Amino acid sequence: MKKKNTIAVATAALIAFGASQGFAQEAVEAAAPAPASDTSVFVFNTLLFLVMGMVVMFMAAGFCMLEAGLVRSKNAATICLKNIGLYSVAGLMVYLIGYNLIYGIAEGGFIAPFDIFWGADDSDPMGVGYGSHSDWYFQMVFVATAASIVSGTLAERIKLFPFLIFTALLTGFIYPIQASWEWGAGWLDAKGFSDFAGSTLVHSTGGWAALAGAIVLGPRIGKYVGGKVTPIPGSNLPLATLGTFILWLGWFGFNGGSQLALGTIEDAVAVGRIFVNTNMAACAGVVTAIILTQVVYKKVDLTIVLNGAIGGLVSITAEPLTPTIGLAIFIGAIGGVIVTFAVPVLDKFKIDDVVGAIPAHLLCGIWGTIIVPASNGDATYGVQALGIIAIGVFVFVVSLICWLALKYTLGIRASDEDERLGLDKAELGLEAYPEFSKG
Amino acid sequence: MKKKNTIAVATAALIAFGASQGFAQEAVEAAAPAPASDTSVFVFNTLLFLVMGMVVMFMAAGFCMLEAGLVRSKNAATICLKNIGLYSVAGLMVYLIGYNLIYGIAEGGFIAPFDIFWGADDSDPMGVGYGSHSDWYFQMVFVATAASIVSGTLAERIKLFPFLIFTALLTGFIYPIQASWEWGAGWLDAKGFSDFAGSTLVHSTGGWAALAGAIVLGPRIGKYVGGKVTPIPGSNLPLATLGTFILWLGWFGFNGGSQLALGTIEDAVAVGRIFVNTNMAACAGVVTAIILTQVVYKKVDLTIVLNGAIGGLVSITAEPLTPTIGLAIFIGAIGGVIVTFAVPVLDKFKIDDVVGAIPAHLLCGIWGTIIVPASNGDATYGVQALGIIAIGVFVFVVSLICWLALKYTLGIRASDEDERLGLDKAELGLEAYPEFSKG
Amino acid sequence: MKKKNTIAVATAALIAFGASQGFAQEAVEAAAPAPASDTSVFVFNTLLFLVMGMVVMFMAAGFCMLEAGLVRSKNAATICLKNIGLYSVAGLMVYLIGYNLIYGIAEGGFIAPFDIFWGADDSDPMGVGYGSHSDWYFQMVFVATAASIVSGTLAERIKLFPFLIFTALLTGFIYPIQASWEWGAGWLDAKGFSDFAGSTLVHSTGGWAALAGAIVLGPRIGKYVGGKVTPIPGSNLPLATLGTFILWLGWFGFNGGSQLALGTIEDAVAVGRIFVNTNMAACAGVVTAIILTQVVYKKVDLTIVLNGAIGGLVSITAEPLTPTIGLAIFIGAIGGVIVTFAVPVLDKFKIDDVVGAIPAHLLCGIWGTIIVPASNGDATYGVQALGIIAIGVFVFVVSLICWLALKYTLGIRASDEDERLGLDKAELGLEAYPEFSKG
Repeated sequence: MKKKNTIAVATAALIAFGASQGFAQEAVEAAAPAPASDTSVFVFNTLLFLVMGMVVMFMAAGFCMLEAGLVRSKNAATICLKNIGLYSVAGLMVYLIGYNLIYGIAEGGFIAPFDIFWGADDSDPMGVGYGSHSDWYFQMVFVATAASIVSGTLAERIKLFPFLIFTALLTGFIYPIQASWEWGAGWLDAKGFSDFAGSTLVHSTGGWAALAGAIVLGPRIGKYVGGKVTPIPGSNLPLATLGTFILWLGWFGFNGGSQLALGTIEDAVAVGRIFVNTNMAACAGVVTAIILTQVVYKKVDLTIVLNGAIGGLVSITAEPLTPTIGLAIFIGAIGGVIVTFAVPVLDKFKIDDVVGAIPAHLLCGIWGTIIVPASNGDATYGVQALGIIAIGVFVFVVSLICWLALKYTLGIRASDEDERLGLDKAELGLEAYPEFSKG
Repeated sequence: MKKKNTIAVATAALIAFGASQGFAQEAVEAAAPAPASDTSVFVFNTLLFLVMGMVVMFMAAGFCMLEAGLVRSKNAATICLKNIGLYSVAGLMVYLIGYNLIYGIAEGGFIAPFDIFWGADDSDPMGVGYGSHSDWYFQMVFVATAASIVSGTLAERIKLFPFLIFTALLTGFIYPIQASWEWGAGWLDAKGFSDFAGSTLVHSTGGWAALAGAIVLGPRIGKYVGGKVTPIPGSNLPLATLGTFILWLGWFGFNGGSQLALGTIEDAVAVGRIFVNTNMAACAGVVTAIILTQVVYKKVDLTIVLNGAIGGLVSITAEPLTPTIGLAIFIGAIGGVIVTFAVPVLDKFKIDDVVGAIPAHLLCGIWGTIIVPASNGDATYGVQALGIIAIGVFVFVVSLICWLALKYTLGIRASDEDERLGLDKAELGLEAYPEFSKG
Repeated sequence: MKKKNTIAVATAALIAFGASQGFAQEAVEAAAPAPASDTSVFVFNTLLFLVMGMVVMFMAAGFCMLEAGLVRSKNAATICLKNIGLYSVAGLMVYLIGYNLIYGIAEGGFIAPFDIFWGADDSDPMGVGYGSHSDWYFQMVFVATAASIVSGTLAERIKLFPFLIFTALLTGFIYPIQASWEWGAGWLDAKGFSDFAGSTLVHSTGGWAALAGAIVLGPRIGKYVGGKVTPIPGSNLPLATLGTFILWLGWFGFNGGSQLALGTIEDAVAVGRIFVNTNMAACAGVVTAIILTQVVYKKVDLTIVLNGAIGGLVSITAEPLTPTIGLAIFIGAIGGVIVTFAVPVLDKFKIDDVVGAIPAHLLCGIWGTIIVPASNGDATYGVQALGIIAIGVFVFVVSLICWLALKYTLGIRASDEDERLGLDKAELGLEAYPEFSKG
């Protein structure tokens, strides 16, 4: 792996080719490098959406493993079902309604399937510079990510179908409406709000919806008894660790793909910078959580360290491009601080967040968004705060209304008996690990 | 993630560049976008094979986890060994024989290693438009997929070495011969049979081989006793869920890579369409299975839901490009119906399919293939049926002969004692989870 | 998946485009295919680093699962923490020191963060032909791989913080110094040493560091008692299998990305060849280990078979490009032989290597490096041996000094009590699988 000067070779080849075309001389004299052809730009952009979208899609598996590892074994099959179910519901809702709500549409109205009214026919691909389906795919997996955040917080006590109905509301309406304010070139975008890959639009949105749900749902039986907090350990920490690594992998796609283009040197350089900053923020979150849990709790806590990685990743998501690596490390480290100290605060309010998603996604999402102006001169702290508050209030209030409506109609909480038995037996009639006897 | 008009920028750059070359005017006037250069097309095509091939390769891990999660813990290590073993045997057999059998070759004969007689020297890369090794890699992982289907159906009772020998026959001869009829430009292709990424050629082929094996092998001890069907629950459902997510991820490569080219706008658009249709068929399969199992069995069954994803994916594999998204959803939903209702039918015939591979791969493969003409005008129902039957008869009969030959020579079934003890202890002398006591 | 002649289409399009530009005739006459533009070459190269780097990054999850599956359950959470911790420490150290140590730097000195003194500003991207961050990312994940090797060997008895401190020394100094000899265009490179993707520079380096640690640390309690070797089975073999599949996947990035360029037909062809050879060496390692363990031990041993895959992969890493597929199979098969027979030899010396990393990474790394001249005419056996010895002596001696220094200051070994209790309870105060009772 010696470094190569590959362009020198390419340039020589170009000159050789150019010579046969009779414009060799100009090619050599041209100061700027020859751009990619329109077609190549189009393919690069489309490929970026597809490849990065694939690893973002795989984050659904990451959330699923993280959550399956952090719940008790009696609820592990149910959380798996919720995760594959929410991803599927998200796909259908983004198709039926969500995508048009985000990006607006004159012809078919907002509530119209993507392939009937909107550019899904790819009739003018060059108009946008990438295959419209590839973009749709990339957006869809983002929406699913927001929904994945909710399932972890509410695990072990929420009933399956009310959860899936909320997922449909979140992915079909709540997420798309707030996303339209910024990514749909709406009013927040016009104000100058900046959220590169969605610290606020995706992660805080998922976090606010989860928080509203946790409040309405109440804590698990036995979590807060007699003013004391009882830890309920996860049943399979290697699986939770795998989930975290998958999320980390997926985040390269999440942030890197959000550059939205790959057909120029500037874009390619940018995606590389984003990868490095994303990686380093996560590294810093992990190391910070290791040191802090050792210092504060005298034991390194693996679940907090895993959350440190996620907290670092969420924190850098609002602006992974403009920070220096040093600043990215700082931003991620603060994410590690947040996840270490926020859980006791939530416990004080008896908010039972099974996997720690509220600290990692909501709080780190706020932190990542507010710090954008530190490296991005186009953003201001005031507008960043405005966006955080506007989206926070909207998502939290509407989610609260949805959760309450579900509570007083279908009911959202499993019966005490079912909760004690475990949702796997109660709702699915099976067990995640039927052969492993429980200690 | 605001949408960008990236081509506008690129075009401006192109004009700037073009200006220095003295052909700016023409570039602006040219109606069609500038194509990618021969080299770029070549690299795009090769890259498609490699990147998509990688995620297809990872499907081997997906099948392994799915199967390891759905068998009892006493057979989990053996199924892992079978899966890594079958992938390895498939690689060697495709190299030694299979690839030449599929694509034909004058010089070296069919039974000749790929790198001795066939374009493996890449001596004329431009002749085909991609690196021949990259294509070989992509084909090889497809063959391994077919073999992976068999291991799940026959788990928990088949002996290791006979299974690996059948794998060698399947990947070296059976799969390649039927694949040559279509992808090797053979008689089925000449008839106009259409199977984009292999609903029939890969999935039904694996399914037919598995069905033949299941018939010859017989059901597991205790599965069908006294006219009653005894469910034998899988030992690790989170692992099975992970496997399904990995398969879902891999399917983007499986179907998307089957476009076989990425160097034009048309190809890039097509791959994007394929990704979306593939995703939506799986979403529909999942949601359908959730609703149906709730309605029919009064409990949502996670293992059927996982199979719903796979059934949806198999169903869309024969034609992931031409359907509208709405049609893709319909096709996938029927896949979900099939996997929900087929298992009881198999049970009626005492065909013991441990992981439900026959419904998901064989039956959904037939469904996906027969429905191709609904969106693809080049296909006809008659020829689709012909292809399904021809390949089905060939694969089933030859597989049956192979299984019977193995049965009456080496024997294929573990002794009752070994089966009761578990194949891990009997065949490997170890346990998959030695420390977790069995309930 | 019929083969297409995609270039023919592209060429026709090119001619059509060229016609409008007035140089159609020349395009047709030009013998060599038109090269990619400078920008396309740049984007291809950068994309190669990023996509291949992503799957190499995912190898961290592969090592983690492999190791978590091969330790006893009482140490599984700790090995997860070590793995996510070592990846994070590696990232920070490569940023602060390591990268500059490898590639040298005049301005800032060797010990300087990457983004302060070295090309991280991407101010002259065309100078190198790829985004410098993308290259940094690719190098970083390589360093993490070397560190991952160490954690497995020393599992179940080393204390957490001394391990992380050694990781910092390995990734910040030891790895970079030896890598600079070759990939930093140092003296070994000048001698003509050849190690394409790092059989010696990455895998043997990790292996030597692990060997030194294993000697200083001593074996686990109960491993060697009264002259007898007591096998200590891994607690979760499906997880170990998953880890192996993830490593196999990652290796396509590891070897394929080490081509370092993708912008020419030659480079694209090369990456395809590398993928195939990498795959086939692993297949051969697996099949060899299956056959050998059956013949020698009368039982196929899954853990040795998994190591056979890794041994095959390490063996081909020093030269995955120039061998024919047949030679790649041979090289990988010898890797399978090595991992089958080396463990008893290590046991004779009471070197307790929990996951078999020393055979797979150190010994197969040596084998892969020494055999390079068999296919690569630029390499000689003498210089290959020189490189193996020089790097081996350097890494082993310096590692030994580091381990001894840590032993006599902080102490590196958990107390007997902690080791018996399990590091999870002792160091983390939790359990990996708290609900699964131990048999």
